[in-house]
Amino acid sequence: MRVSLVAGGAGFIGQNLVRALVEGGRKVLVVDDLSLGRTESFGALLADDLLLFRQVDCSDAETLSAAVREAGVEITEVWHLAANSDIPAGISDPTVDLKRTFLTTFAILQFMREAGVPALHFASSSAIYGDHRGLALSEDTGPWEPISNYGAMKLASEAQIRAAVEAWLPRANIFRFPNVVGVPATHGVILDLVRKLARTPDRLEVLGDGTQSKPYLHVDDLVESMLHIAGLDGRHRVFNIGPDDDGASVRSIAEAVRDHLSPDAEIAFGTAPRGWVGDVSQMRYDISRLKATGWQARLSSAEAVRRAVIQISAQEALG
Amino acid sequence: MRVSLVAGGAGFIGQNLVRALVEGGRKVLVVDDLSLGRTESFGALLADDLLLFRQVDCSDAETLSAAVREAGVEITEVWHLAANSDIPAGISDPTVDLKRTFLTTFAILQFMREAGVPALHFASSSAIYGDHRGLALSEDTGPWEPISNYGAMKLASEAQIRAAVEAWLPRANIFRFPNVVGVPATHGVILDLVRKLARTPDRLEVLGDGTQSKPYLHVDDLVESMLHIAGLDGRHRVFNIGPDDDGASVRSIAEAVRDHLSPDAEIAFGTAPRGWVGDVSQMRYDISRLKATGWQARLSSAEAVRRAVIQISAQEALG
Repeated sequence: MRVSLVAGGAGFIGQNLVRALVEGGRKVLVVDDLSLGRTESFGALLADDLLLFRQVDCSDAETLSAAVREAGVEITEVWHLAANSDIPAGISDPTVDLKRTFLTTFAILQFMREAGVPALHFASSSAIYGDHRGLALSEDTGPWEPISNYGAMKLASEAQIRAAVEAWLPRANIFRFPNVVGVPATHGVILDLVRKLARTPDRLEVLGDGTQSKPYLHVDDLVESMLHIAGLDGRHRVFNIGPDDDGASVRSIAEAVRDHLSPDAEIAFGTAPRGWVGDVSQMRYDISRLKATGWQARLSSAEAVRRAVIQISAQEALG
Repeated sequence: MRVSLVAGGAGFIGQNLVRALVEGGRKVLVVDDLSLGRTESFGALLADDLLLFRQVDCSDAETLSAAVREAGVEITEVWHLAANSDIPAGISDPTVDLKRTFLTTFAILQFMREAGVPALHFASSSAIYGDHRGLALSEDTGPWEPISNYGAMKLASEAQIRAAVEAWLPRANIFRFPNVVGVPATHGVILDLVRKLARTPDRLEVLGDGTQSKPYLHVDDLVESMLHIAGLDGRHRVFNIGPDDDGASVRSIAEAVRDHLSPDAEIAFGTAPRGWVGDVSQMRYDISRLKATGWQARLSSAEAVRRAVIQISAQEALG
């Protein structure tokens, strides 16, 4: 049986991708170590045998190979979304991103080479670029100087995939994600702010001075773009994925959270232009390459944020 | 006692760097796993206690830390030259470059963070750029798409170092080496050709069609440039290091070897424009950044090749 493998498929973006793949008629094997992922939402799909799940540490090629063998399926493509999504955690302990963000890529490539899997779709990140202070970044804009271990290990992953394409891998797509919002939220600025405001409904404290600005994409748009790109031709393609705008500020996100949950609350900003070490405070994408393929996001950054605020508030049973 | 640590200091470039550091009055601790390195040339320096040597696998931070503790010295800077220098070996088995080229960097950074070592000088490579088909590459020219696992793991190393500078490392210099020639040669096109011609003195077989062209720098110039850059200010600096010319072709190198060793030999070229998978056949550097600091190479690519041919022939006791 021909099956798509989704590594990290139980995470926030993974769950959304898996549902879209199954709805598109594919059979899917999800492998995830469940360090951050959840499988509750897969209940009906698992019961109907449209989805297989194995709890696997994807940074170990032998474990991964054994899990696929045991499942008795032939993998025709891999979607690799397994990574440490907690960037500050990776900054205090670099081994977190080494293992979860890079060694997963390394092991998945080992597995694919041995199993002869011909196509890889990889979730990379705007974090590979580092801090270009708001310059609109095209896919080729150098230098690439990631300022977090997360970004470093995403760049390392891209590099290892590129070398594999040269040597043996028939096809790879690299998706450079912007900030992605939606549900089920496990981390990120909107979830943080929603939870903070739930604890102190009259006051919302914000990390940084609120001027941080980045593109935000709703996960529904993101998944649609990934499926769109996977349908294109090309041996090794790299895409910035984002909305067609200059992004949203943390101030506007805080205001959207307050307006939805507690309109009279006071918002208290910090003084630093960054939220934390390793955070890029001003980021813009040039998405000409993606637009030229005929795809564009349904929601702007501001719309994606507002929709996610409503969804995450509901997830947290708050509004 | 204040000491410079040189990781990979028993390799080709390492031995030359170590000698220059000692001649400049520094005390040096060499750590090397001796997988490719040799210590014979250190005899007198070791005897005079100007140099300490420990056989260490630098991809293991605890082993490295223990070796430094046991040596009873305070490390004030690290020169990191430890890597797999056999690029084809790394292409057939990616774990070679993972361990020797990247995990060495990862472990050295762990050691430095724990020990509070404030400065890192890192041997990177033109291989991080990938194949730009002869475009003159500045340090910021993207995209960076290495086509060998060696190049991928050098890029991964640069990325991890950049993230460390953001979080805790006070100072890092990144040297992007071109092809480097000289003695003691352990690998590379000149040594290959010298040895081939020694086996069949009337015929020199060359991998590829001879049109491959890259900048070649003599190791004496390389070491001088590294010491020059180490003396500059700056928190995180990246330099292409090379001669001020467009390079030398493999054809010209083969001719230099033939002319020196066996002038009547026939040279037989292959048909492929590349020597092997993962080889970049046309490479040029823009070295404006380095020149602007007031440094330039003494030898051109052609002169470096000719000098190295003479030196390597002597090393092999052939000419």
